[in-house]
This record gives sequence, structure tokens and C-alpha cells, in this order.
Amino acid sequence: MLPSDPDALVEAALGGDRRALARILTAVENRTPTAEAALRRLYPKAGTAHLVGITGPPGSGKSTLVSAIIATVREGGRAVAVVAVDPSSPITGGALLGDRVRMQSYAGDADVFIRSMAARGHAGGLAPTSTAAAAVLDACGFDLILLETVGTGQSEVEVAAAADTTVVLEAPEMGDEIQASKAGLLEVADIVVVNKGDRPGAGRTASQLRAMLVGSVRAGRVREEAKDDRPRPKEPEVLVTTATTGDGVPELVAALERHREGRPSGADDPARRARAAAQVWSILGDRLRAELEGGTRRIATAAVLDAVAEHALDPFAAADRLLASLRTTDG
Amino acid sequence: MLPSDPDALVEAALGGDRRALARILTAVENRTPTAEAALRRLYPKAGTAHLVGITGPPGSGKSTLVSAIIATVREGGRAVAVVAVDPSSPITGGALLGDRVRMQSYAGDADVFIRSMAARGHAGGLAPTSTAAAAVLDACGFDLILLETVGTGQSEVEVAAAADTTVVLEAPEMGDEIQASKAGLLEVADIVVVNKGDRPGAGRTASQLRAMLVGSVRAGRVREEAKDDRPRPKEPEVLVTTATTGDGVPELVAALERHREGRPSGADDPARRARAAAQVWSILGDRLRAELEGGTRRIATAAVLDAVAEHALDPFAAADRLLASLRTTDG
Repeated sequence: MLPSDPDALVEAALGGDRRALARILTAVENRTPTAEAALRRLYPKAGTAHLVGITGPPGSGKSTLVSAIIATVREGGRAVAVVAVDPSSPITGGALLGDRVRMQSYAGDADVFIRSMAARGHAGGLAPTSTAAAAVLDACGFDLILLETVGTGQSEVEVAAAADTTVVLEAPEMGDEIQASKAGLLEVADIVVVNKGDRPGAGRTASQLRAMLVGSVRAGRVREEAKDDRPRPKEPEVLVTTATTGDGVPELVAALERHREGRPSGADDPARRARAAAQVWSILGDRLRAELEGGTRRIATAAVLDAVAEHALDPFAAADRLLASLRTTDG
Repeated sequence: MLPSDPDALVEAALGGDRRALARILTAVENRTPTAEAALRRLYPKAGTAHLVGITGPPGSGKSTLVSAIIATVREGGRAVAVVAVDPSSPITGGALLGDRVRMQSYAGDADVFIRSMAARGHAGGLAPTSTAAAAVLDACGFDLILLETVGTGQSEVEVAAAADTTVVLEAPEMGDEIQASKAGLLEVADIVVVNKGDRPGAGRTASQLRAMLVGSVRAGRVREEAKDDRPRPKEPEVLVTTATTGDGVPELVAALERHREGRPSGADDPARRARAAAQVWSILGDRLRAELEGGTRRIATAAVLDAVAEHALDPFAAADRLLASLRTTDG
């Protein structure tokens, strides 16, 4: 039996109980009070793991590459966790990625933990939730945490870009031209991987990507404008892997380490700072909303939102009215 | 020359000046002060248009179907606008959908307006921004507004699901089974369209979808749990279209009308109420963040966020500290 008390759950998870860890992650995913209690205790113990975001279009072989990375990293003895963010079922949620099947491959290895998290329709909440899950895994001793995202939508890119190191996967191109739609993904890449390297065109695709990355794509990169003034490589490395055979995977793991070592520390790291801010803003939003929709304010808030739905009140005036009501002390 | 004064821009847009309308939409996309000023004036004039979300996997023919819907709707004389939400370039933004090319087809028709909006990395802001853009178009006299989304990520589904009527497109399946990944999309569907109806398998795909929709997919549907108690069809209609020839498109437009007429009005409409709430929460978040990151609070807020990035403070404690600072009057 798992304890239901958050403190006892935390102690069990820190002691290596993977079911307790899984229970805490479920609470984080569902944003329950247990999640807050557990995170408050675990967050100060986190902050040392390497968060690696892995994104790319469907069919680029993300899951297979993640398995190959796990195998390589485990040879070196490090504990590795995977948070697979699955946006395909925004409403009912549920683990569609077959993580149970994948877990079975590592059933005897307590230092591999794989967990899928469904997007549950929390607007903007996917990245903060993933960050919170990573903090839990970090505190519980996982040194490498892979944030694997499915699909190429906005939220997936945000999740991947919130990592310390962002890997963008591509499959070899059949045609002559790299698809323009990939430019958006490449903007967030620290490392670009052409997977399925045994297919025709892999080398050419890698060359084309290197040529692309020298040019305009990087110009718009937000991270260049961040407060981090330290010199950093202008273009991401482009590597070729064949996840099914493991070819190129040790080189990728080495590139991840190089990128990790080249990053600034603590709050000087723009990615870490942005993750922290996103978590705080998300919690702040939850708190305000709970306050406005609960207790004595519930009916007044509903009336304001109804008025906006009726177009009798504009949403800016509504927001100002709700903000004013928050400043009154008789909540 | 367009006026830069928001009131004058609004007057011009209401008078039919499409460049003024485009300018306001750019302001909405970029969340400038002009956007707030314009929306405050336009929002009370909106609320009558039919918002139709169109989503579906890449390759299902969304753009072609949207063009075919425009042609059919224009035969009936109604003004139609398209907001094409493009998440592929989250950082540099930009209109990648070739809306200029598409607009040329309707260059002589002022009652067709096509606009693409890029996701600019506002976490959770895509749906509220699309809603605000739709309100602008609604106020300017467009009776049908199509929210076309690209891709199948979380944010795209949210945008589409925020419409009055949500159309999910599918292409005929090659294999025997509908992909499990489509279940998430189907959850938000009011109308399902199998496009490319001239391809082999279209009829079979439609039959399979009808069978699927009777079953488990609908069980988890969030709208069923909403406050709207009126009876509604248990399953969405499944239609077959061939967008390239126009086959089935008049039937789709008629189905859209039927769905529109069957919806509750005003704040009784859960979709409308949810849209209003999402806009208000988004603005409230922007306001709070601006207040915390501006003026005399800027340095204190930065110190709190730095402490979270350093794992010296947990994000819940940080949120509570910032909330407390908001309640002090000496901002």
C-alpha cells in the first residue's frame, strides 16, 4: 500500500520507491493538492539534472531514438527518465504512447523510468507541468531527463524548448528541398539529428540542414536575444543517427554532454530562468482563478464572464473588474 | 494612408476598409495597445457571426476544403472570413500559409477575407488571440468565420474547439484501421468530414468513423459535461466531400447551418462561455504579469524568479509571495 500522505509519499519516492514516484507524477499531471505539497518538498532537492527536449515531426523515429539513448546512457551508469508529452488526446487524456510496453524493456532496471503525460486541455499548462514533472524526477535522482514530445504543434515546441538542450529530429528527405514547415522547429534546436541514417538521402539532408542553419533561421532565434551574453555556437550541430542499429547514438550522447557543459549556471541560464518563470506564472494564474471562482466571489465572477459571453462587456473591462475585486480584502 | 489612431482605424474598418481591418488584426496578433483600444470598441458590436473551427491532420485537404466552402457560401451572398492559425513558426512568426496567394483568388470580392496568424510563443494565447481576431471580423460584418488550424497539436485542437461548430477533417484511410491518434481529434468534432471522397476507401473510412463515434470516443467528451442541459445529437454527422470538385460541399455548408441553429444562445452556449472566459483569463494574466514586471515591482519580481531558477525557492512559495506583493497598495 502506498501512503496517501504527501510527506510520506515524498519520503518513499526519495528512497527509491518508483510507485510512489509514479503517484506523485500523476498528482502533478492532475494538479491536485498532493502535487503542491510534494513539489514544495522536492523542488529544493532538484536543479542538477540535465533536461533534454526531443521533438520532431511524426515518423522521424523519436521513440526509437529515445530507446537508443537510454541504452547508451545506461552503459555509462547514469539514471535516465523519459517524460513523453502526448497532445493527441486533449480531453480524455490517457497514456497513448504505449509507455507500459516500453517500460517492460527496462522492467529490471530501476534507473530507467518512462512516463507519458497527456495534455489535459490546460491552456499553456503543458510546459509548466512537464517542468514540474522533471523537477520531481530530478529530485529523485535521475540525472538525465528526456522530454519527448509528439507532433509538431505549438505546445510541443514549447515543451521541448523549455529544456536545457533541445534536440530536433528530422527524417531524410525524399525530395530536393527541406520543407519550409521545418524552419519553425529548427529555430528551437540546439542539436539537429537526421535519424534513419541508413536511408537514402540522409547525408544530403544533413548537408542541406547545415546550409540552412547558417542562414536566416538562426537570425530570428529568441535565445540570442536573451540576457545571456556568453559566447555560444552560432549554429546547432547536425548529427546523423540510425536509432534502430544505434549508429551515431554515442556521438549524440556526447554532443548532449558538450552542450550541457557549455551552458551558464543557475539563474544565468536563460532556459532555466524561463522555465522557472513559466511555472510561477502558471501557478499564479491557477491561484487567481481559484480565488475568483471560489467562495463569495464565485457568483460575481460568473456574472462578469456571462456578460462577456453576451458581448455586453468587453473582456478587458471584465479583466479590470475582476482584478479590482481581487484587491478588496473581503474575499 | 491609414490612420494610426485606434478610434479612426476602427471607424475605417467598420466602414469596410479592409486595410484598416488588417491593421487591427496585426495589432491583435501582436497584443499591442492598439489592439486593446480597438477591441474595446469592436467587441460590443460582435457576437452574431458563426465561428467554425476546421482542424485535421496534415494532408487531409483543409485549405482546399476551406476554398470550396468559401465558394459555396459566396453563392449565397454571405461574407466569409478565414483565420488560418499556423503554429509552425512559434518564434519568428510570419504568414507561411500563402494567404496572399489565396487572397488573390478573391481579390475582387471584399466579402472574402483571409488572414493567417502565426503562433508567437504566447503560451496558451493562441485560442484567446484567435477569439479576439474573430470578434474583430464579426464586428466588421463577416457572418461566417472559419478558424482553420494547421497540424494536430494541443493548441490547434484548442483553437478549433473554441468555435461554435468544430469540423474535423480526415483523409480516406489506406489501411484497415482508423489511427488511434485520431481519437483525440474526434473528441472535439461536431461534424466529421472525410475529404478526398474520390479516393478509394472514402466510403469505408466514413463507415468506420460512424461506428467509432457511436462508441467510446464520445463518452469522454467534455462538452457533454458542460452546463448546457439541452438535448443535442449524441454523435457528430459524418460527411464525405471532394473539395477539389466541390462534391458534398453544399451538404457540409447545410450541416454547418443546422448545427448553428441547434445551439443555445448567449451565455447559455458552453462554447461561447468558454471562449469569453479564456479571453478574460488571458488578459488578466497579461495584466498581472505587466504589473509585476513593471515599475517599482520589477526588481523584486526578478529576484523571486531568479530564486526559483536557483531552486532556492519553490514555485508555489514564489507565486504566493508575488500575489502578496500585488495586494500591497504601493505598487
